[in-house]
Amino acid sequence: MINKLTEKIKKTHAPVVVGLDPMLSYIPDHILQTSFTEYGETLEGAADAIWRFNKGIVDSTYDLIPAVKPQIAMYEQFGVPGVAAFQKTVDYCHEKGLLVIGDVKRGDIGSTSAAYAVGHLGNVAVGNNRLSAFGEEFATVNPYLGTDGVQPFIDVCKEERKGLFILVKTSNPSSGEFQDRLIDGRPLYEYVGEKVAQWGAQHMGGAYSYIGAVVGATYPQVGRVLRKIMPKTYILVPGYGAQGGKGADLVHYFNEDGLGAIVNSSRGIIAAYKQEQYARFGALHYAEASRQAVLDMIQDIDHALQAAK
Amino acid sequence: MINKLTEKIKKTHAPVVVGLDPMLSYIPDHILQTSFTEYGETLEGAADAIWRFNKGIVDSTYDLIPAVKPQIAMYEQFGVPGVAAFQKTVDYCHEKGLLVIGDVKRGDIGSTSAAYAVGHLGNVAVGNNRLSAFGEEFATVNPYLGTDGVQPFIDVCKEERKGLFILVKTSNPSSGEFQDRLIDGRPLYEYVGEKVAQWGAQHMGGAYSYIGAVVGATYPQVGRVLRKIMPKTYILVPGYGAQGGKGADLVHYFNEDGLGAIVNSSRGIIAAYKQEQYARFGALHYAEASRQAVLDMIQDIDHALQAAK
Repeated sequence: MINKLTEKIKKTHAPVVVGLDPMLSYIPDHILQTSFTEYGETLEGAADAIWRFNKGIVDSTYDLIPAVKPQIAMYEQFGVPGVAAFQKTVDYCHEKGLLVIGDVKRGDIGSTSAAYAVGHLGNVAVGNNRLSAFGEEFATVNPYLGTDGVQPFIDVCKEERKGLFILVKTSNPSSGEFQDRLIDGRPLYEYVGEKVAQWGAQHMGGAYSYIGAVVGATYPQVGRVLRKIMPKTYILVPGYGAQGGKGADLVHYFNEDGLGAIVNSSRGIIAAYKQEQYARFGALHYAEASRQAVLDMIQDIDHALQAAK
Repeated sequence: MINKLTEKIKKTHAPVVVGLDPMLSYIPDHILQTSFTEYGETLEGAADAIWRFNKGIVDSTYDLIPAVKPQIAMYEQFGVPGVAAFQKTVDYCHEKGLLVIGDVKRGDIGSTSAAYAVGHLGNVAVGNNRLSAFGEEFATVNPYLGTDGVQPFIDVCKEERKGLFILVKTSNPSSGEFQDRLIDGRPLYEYVGEKVAQWGAQHMGGAYSYIGAVVGATYPQVGRVLRKIMPKTYILVPGYGAQGGKGADLVHYFNEDGLGAIVNSSRGIIAAYKQEQYARFGALHYAEASRQAVLDMIQDIDHALQAAK
């Protein structure tokens, strides 16, 4: 699946992923009104609104990008109807030819990690059937529990040709509390990065491994170090845009082949129409604002990569 | 909510939680047949079977125990119907007066952690309504992302009088890969334990904090150290029974008041009828086997605590 992601990135010239992390406050009134009229101000109504909102953005951007990254928390907060909207979003993105990175940050041990892995990336056995549940191509995984927690995900990825992005260094201000603690003079995230490279070596798809890493855009120097520790690891980079990361900060997350990293923007794209820069589109044309924001993001990253050559 | 948990533990004399982590391989044929006849060998069929299986165990044990801990991965693997069975299980446990610890091990940052928190422990705003989604009393949380990841959960807990159990030292063999790394001569889990105690001090419910910890039963010496580092923290202890932990190993997880810890057993209880010790009950009476296994577990822990006095 990493081969497929790499091909799509080459084809679109866009190492960019749109984070489908809908909050009700991002959704234009005309969509909320439609959904609330049909389902009331209920969990079902909220789920319908986020699905409609997503559909608009996907329809408006799918030809520009290789992948989307729905953040399941934004769906799970609306309970079972919300999770159904997550499923509907994943299915629709597949219809439009997009790869889906399930931003689920799951992580447990043994048979429990295996259950998450089959549910999100694989097939679950029910009687004589093998059934796909959520069916994303990639999932994000939390490494705190060690190899026991990650290996069941890797096993499913091998079987199903799917991939992972494992949290190494996250983009938030307090990520350093544990991730930066020094062990023999080196921060914990470097050890986690080494493990990711080691896990990934078991499962290569061409030049890159199916087992990727998450490294936040907000720590460019860390990106440079981790790029060297994990040369064959695809790095998923959150924190672009709304969290403060810019294209110029990200050049060291990429390899010299111009590959090896894919940058996520969520709010900066899906709520673009709320920014001054894109206000001219208006709420009714929110999806066109998102398209323009994607084009601008692609250009920003491309310029930064060209300037670094 | 920790007050309520403490009261219920005192009343039942059972610092015990039953892990509702159903695997299809645990479920007796008569239940599978009923569900597959009605729904086919589908995700809906699997979800119906785990719900029926759970109901039997809850009906047979609810008077003995203060709480249950459904592991959401075991439901999520069956997609949306599985998540609906999780919800149904939580609701039914509430009907029977049980507290529910959602073993979700979620952890993200900022508004994303807040979304998980409102979905599992709080109320989500939809228009003018505030709606409960999953509605557990406690959730397990992964600390790898630091305070930014945990604080949104704490904020919801304060508002809703709910609680957390934060992963400090997990029960699996490779938990040491990162959790045991030495920082200035002390393992990472001690620093995480200190943070839990610090986070918890903001939010006390009587003698104990609403912010608890997870410390695996398989590392008794670690339990002793962490008990001292987190004197007012309730410790949720997985790994009893099937994973190897015994009552005698657990006495140092408790405080001198006989409180401060609650021990989980999953497979050892819910699949008791598959063990030689309880085989006499047979698959048809699996729930009675679970009841006997709960009684034996309560006695084992009680004897160990008495012997340690």
